[in-house]
Amino acid sequence: MVHTDESCRKARLAVRDTLDVVGGKWKLVLLTILRRGKRRFRELSREADISPRILSKELQEMEMNGLVSRTVLDTKPITVEYALTPYSETLDEVLNAMEKWGQHHREKIMST
Amino acid sequence: MVHTDESCRKARLAVRDTLDVVGGKWKLVLLTILRRGKRRFRELSREADISPRILSKELQEMEMNGLVSRTVLDTKPITVEYALTPYSETLDEVLNAMEKWGQHHREKIMST
Repeated sequence: MVHTDESCRKARLAVRDTLDVVGGKWKLVLLTILRRGKRRFRELSREADISPRILSKELQEMEMNGLVSRTVLDTKPITVEYALTPYSETLDEVLNAMEKWGQHHREKIMST
Repeated sequence: MVHTDESCRKARLAVRDTLDVVGGKWKLVLLTILRRGKRRFRELSREADISPRILSKELQEMEMNGLVSRTVLDTKPITVEYALTPYSETLDEVLNAMEKWGQHHREKIMST
């Protein structure tokens, strides 16, 4: 990699753009769960251990950015189901790298 | 990928572990800058556009996790220089994927 100021600026901007969309404590965790299949709101809240209020906000932002789709099912009571969009698959490399690093880091910590 | 509950739990944990170490608004941006070469504290503060108080805290956490090294130079006034450690290179895949995605996402947004 050429380490010019311009390449640094561009890289910084790109990482910041990514963090603007999937940064924070929850979105990458939610994507990791939804990669395993669609989930209802309650299931997501339980699996991610996240309060309904925050989950609702996170999902709304992810929907706005085209990463998840929301389907209201005509059940009694109504259920709302979330699934990944095809566009979210562009994040596979990021998610895979994070999963791999987290595992690797845990093994390193455990072995010291 | 097999989508069992166990694989989901492990993946979730790994992503969370990664976010515990490099999550938040700044650390991945700071790593992106430091990949281009070592920096003095003031340079980092300016390039990342981050207040000295927060930068200091972020760098301390990164040092604790073995991602950056801190060198005090015997100049007048004293300067403190930060560089990436060899261990931080294990994050290359994460950083590359994030840079790539940010660029890709920006192009997508710009073209719509």
